Amino acid sequence: MARKGEDKAYVKELTSKREDFAQWYVDVIRKTDMADYTTLKGCMVIKPYGFALWEGIRQALDQRIRRTGHKNAYFPLFVPESLLKLEADHVKGFAPEVAWVTKGGSEELEEPLAIRPTSEAIICSIYAKWVQSYRDLPILINQWANVVRWEKVTRLFLRTTEFLWQEGHTCHRTQEEAQEETIRMLEVYREFAETELAMPVLYGEKTDSEKFAGAQKTYAIEALMADGKALQAGTSHNLGQHFAKVFQIKFLDEDQKEKYVWQTSWGVSTRLIGGVVMMHGDDYGLALPPRIAPVQVVFVPIYFSDSMEEVIRKVKELGDKLGAYRVELDLRDTQTAGWKFNEWEMKGVPLRIEVGPKDIKKKQVVMVRRDTREKTFVPEERFVETVGEQLEDIQRNLFQRALDFRKDNTSHTDDYGEFKEIIERKRGFIVSGWCGDPLCEAKVKEDTKATIRCLPLEELDATGARCLACGKPAAKRAYFARAY
Amino acid sequence: MARKGEDKAYVKELTSKREDFAQWYVDVIRKTDMADYTTLKGCMVIKPYGFALWEGIRQALDQRIRRTGHKNAYFPLFVPESLLKLEADHVKGFAPEVAWVTKGGSEELEEPLAIRPTSEAIICSIYAKWVQSYRDLPILINQWANVVRWEKVTRLFLRTTEFLWQEGHTCHRTQEEAQEETIRMLEVYREFAETELAMPVLYGEKTDSEKFAGAQKTYAIEALMADGKALQAGTSHNLGQHFAKVFQIKFLDEDQKEKYVWQTSWGVSTRLIGGVVMMHGDDYGLALPPRIAPVQVVFVPIYFSDSMEEVIRKVKELGDKLGAYRVELDLRDTQTAGWKFNEWEMKGVPLRIEVGPKDIKKKQVVMVRRDTREKTFVPEERFVETVGEQLEDIQRNLFQRALDFRKDNTSHTDDYGEFKEIIERKRGFIVSGWCGDPLCEAKVKEDTKATIRCLPLEELDATGARCLACGKPAAKRAYFARAY
Repeated sequence: MARKGEDKAYVKELTSKREDFAQWYVDVIRKTDMADYTTLKGCMVIKPYGFALWEGIRQALDQRIRRTGHKNAYFPLFVPESLLKLEADHVKGFAPEVAWVTKGGSEELEEPLAIRPTSEAIICSIYAKWVQSYRDLPILINQWANVVRWEKVTRLFLRTTEFLWQEGHTCHRTQEEAQEETIRMLEVYREFAETELAMPVLYGEKTDSEKFAGAQKTYAIEALMADGKALQAGTSHNLGQHFAKVFQIKFLDEDQKEKYVWQTSWGVSTRLIGGVVMMHGDDYGLALPPRIAPVQVVFVPIYFSDSMEEVIRKVKELGDKLGAYRVELDLRDTQTAGWKFNEWEMKGVPLRIEVGPKDIKKKQVVMVRRDTREKTFVPEERFVETVGEQLEDIQRNLFQRALDFRKDNTSHTDDYGEFKEIIERKRGFIVSGWCGDPLCEAKVKEDTKATIRCLPLEELDATGARCLACGKPAAKRAYFARAY
Repeated sequence: MARKGEDKAYVKELTSKREDFAQWYVDVIRKTDMADYTTLKGCMVIKPYGFALWEGIRQALDQRIRRTGHKNAYFPLFVPESLLKLEADHVKGFAPEVAWVTKGGSEELEEPLAIRPTSEAIICSIYAKWVQSYRDLPILINQWANVVRWEKVTRLFLRTTEFLWQEGHTCHRTQEEAQEETIRMLEVYREFAETELAMPVLYGEKTDSEKFAGAQKTYAIEALMADGKALQAGTSHNLGQHFAKVFQIKFLDEDQKEKYVWQTSWGVSTRLIGGVVMMHGDDYGLALPPRIAPVQVVFVPIYFSDSMEEVIRKVKELGDKLGAYRVELDLRDTQTAGWKFNEWEMKGVPLRIEVGPKDIKKKQVVMVRRDTREKTFVPEERFVETVGEQLEDIQRNLFQRALDFRKDNTSHTDDYGEFKEIIERKRGFIVSGWCGDPLCEAKVKEDTKATIRCLPLEELDATGARCLACGKPAAKRAYFARAY
C-alpha cells in the first residue's frame, strides 16, 4: 500500500470530458454510484451516494425556505383530470406529459387521475377551502415531493420521468406582495446555488415562450455548464390570479369586499445534482463543493505490514478530531492506497488526507485538494484548522473557477452571423439585442437551437442595441444560449 | 387578556372521547390543523402542524436507521405489472389494492404500471443487478417515500389511499444474518416507539394469516389505543429467499458456489401519528410527547394595556433563554389569553408558560403541564432547568400512563365465554391459549372480530393452556385484540 499508482487504470474507464461530454456525464454518475437507469423507461434509481448529496442540498435549502417564513406540508399525489383542466394554459402545457391512473384495484375509475407533474391544480383546490378572510393570508407553504412527467428523451438527473423536488405554493392579499415573494424566492435560489453549490447563476425573467404553463411571469436562475450549454436550475413564478379565478380562491378583505388571492409557486429539483456534476467535474470524476459533499474529508492510511497498526491508530486519532466535519476513514485492506486515491477523487471528495509511517515520524499529514489536486504537507498541530481553511478555500475556488469560466464564455454581439458562429464554435452565453417580438425569438431558436435564457433583473445597457433576428432597434439585451 | 376563561367554548367543539371515540379522533386532527380530507377519495392533506410532527418522527427514526448501518436511497414510484406478479403471495396480497397507470401522455402503455403499494418487487429487480459477489453483501438500504393502496374504507393517518413511510430493504449472505436483521429492526422500532412516542408496545411474531404477503416471517410492534383496540405500529419481515428466487438475486460465495441472498424488509408509516393521537389525547385535544412535539413550550403573555410592553419584553427575554427547545411565543393581540390556553392545549403542546405583571413582580413564571394540566409557580432563576425537568417528566408520565392503561386492560383467560364478554365489554389485550390451528384463529375472528396481534418474542408461560376455540391443549399463549 505504498503511495504509488495515482494514475492507475481505475479512472481511465471514464470517457474524456472534452471528447464526449454526454458520455463523460453518464460515466461519472454511474461509476461513482450516484444513480443508475432502471428497466423502467426514463426512471432512475438514486443510489446512496447520490441520495446523500440530495439530502445535503435539501437540508441547506429547507433551512432557507423556513427562514423566509414558509412551512412544509404534504398534498396528494393525484390530480383529478377535471382539476388539471381548469386552467387552460396549465393543461395545455402539462397534459402531453402526464401519467394517468385509470384503474384502482379491479375497478375502472370514473375519472382518470393524473400523477402530479406539478401541484398547482390540487393545491389550489385545497387552498380554496382554507382561505376565507384576509386574516388567513399569506399562505406560505412548501412541499418536498416526487413528481412525474412522461418525457420522451431522458438523462440521469437532468430529465427523468420521475424526479424529486420542492415546490412552494403561496397565496397573498395583493399583487405587490406576490411579486415580492416571487423575487424573494428567486433570490433565495440564487444565494443558495452560489453559496452551497458554488454555482454562479444569472437570474432574470423568462420570455413568454419559456414561461411556466399558467404563470403570469416566470423568473429563473441559469447556470453555464462546462460544455457551454445553459441549465435552468430553479424557477419562481408569479401566478397572478390565473389559478385563483378558476379555482375560486377568494377572501373577504378588510374593506368587506370579496377578492381573489394573488399566488406564486417556485421549485428546484434533483436536476441540481446534474448541474453540480457538469459544472465542477473533470476527467478525474466528480468535484463536490465541500458544503454539500456527503464526505468532506477522507483519510487514506498508507502502510506496510510492520506499520499498519501504528498508522491505523493515528488515522483514527486524527479522524476523531474532525467531529465538525463529515469524515470517512478508508480502512479497507482489500484495496491499494493508489486505488483508493483514484476512487475518492472520482467520487469528488474535497479533501484527502494521507497518513504514512514517515508522516507520523515527521508529525505531519499529507493533504490533497480535489479541486486543484495540489498536495501539501501540514504539521499535525495545525491539522484541524488547516482542514477548515482548505475546505473553505475549495468552496471559494470552485465558485471562482465557474465564474471565470462563465466570463470567458459570455460573448456580446448583435450581429446574427457572428452569433451563429459563436453558437457553433464556442457556445456559452451570448448577450444580444432583442426587439421583443416572439417571432424573432422563434427564428433564432429555429436557426441556432439557442433560446433566450433570461432578461436579467438588473437590465443590461441597451444603448444602440439592434435585434439579432430582424435588425430593428432593440429595447433590451438578453442572454441567449443553447440549454439543457 | 386576563387569566380567565380556561374552559371557554373553544374546546367544547370537540366530541367527548368517551362518548364517540371515532368522532373525537377526527375532530382532534381536523381542529388542530394536523390534516384534512380532500375531494380525492381516501387521500388526505397533511397540514403544516401534522407534517412537523411527521418530520420530528422521521428525524428521530432516521438517526436510528443510520446508526444501525443503513443508508437512504430512492427507487422508482412505478412497478411494472410483470414484476409485481413474480412473487405469487405478494401479488395475491397487493393486487386488489393497487392503483394502475395505463396511459403516459397520449399513449396507452404496453404494460400497466402499479404505483408502489410497497417496493419489494421494484427494489428486488434492481438488487438483482447490484449483487454479484459475497463482497457486495450485506445491502442495507432504507427509503422514505409515498406509497398508494386503494383502500375502501379510510381514516385520517390510520388508513389512507396514499401515505408516507419508510421501508428498509436488505440482502444478506446467510439465513441467520437476515433473521438477526429482522429482529434488530423490530427492536429499533420498539425502542423508538417507547422512547420518542412514549408508546409502550408489545412485540412479537405474527401468525401466518397476518403475515406480510411474500414474507417468511413477520414481526410487529403493537400498541393499545385508548378505546381498547390494538394498532399495528410497525412491521419487520424476514423474507427468506422468496423474492431472491423469483428475482434471481444471486451471488458467488467465498466457496465459489452461486447462492441466493436472504432478505428482510421493514417499515413504519404516517399511521404512527394516528397512534400518538389515540394513545395520549384526551377531551382537551392532543397531548404530544415532548421529544417529538413540533412546539415543546409555548409562552402566553397575560397583560392589560398598561402592562403590555413590560410583559412582552419579559416573554421575549425568557424565550431567548430556551434556545435548546422548540419554543413558540404567542404574541397575537387578536385572541384572549383564555382562548390561547385552550388552543395550545388542544394542539397538545407539552408545556405552557404564562407570564403576567404579578409574575414579573414576584420574579416567577407559571408553568402548566399538558399531561396533568397541573399548574406550578416557578422562580425565574430556576426556570430554564425546570423546563427541562418538566419536559422529561411529561415524556415519562405519558409513557407510564399508557403502560398502566395497558396493564389495566390486559386480561387473561382460556375460557371462550369469558373472552367474548371481555371483548364486548372492555376490549384491550387478552392473553389466551392457542393450539396453533389457523382454523381456530379464524373462528375467533369470525365470532369476535379479535385477531392474534402477536406471539410475543419472549414466550408467555403456557403451562396448562387450552386453545380458546377448540379447548385442546395449547402449546402457546398469544395476545388477542380487536385492531385498527
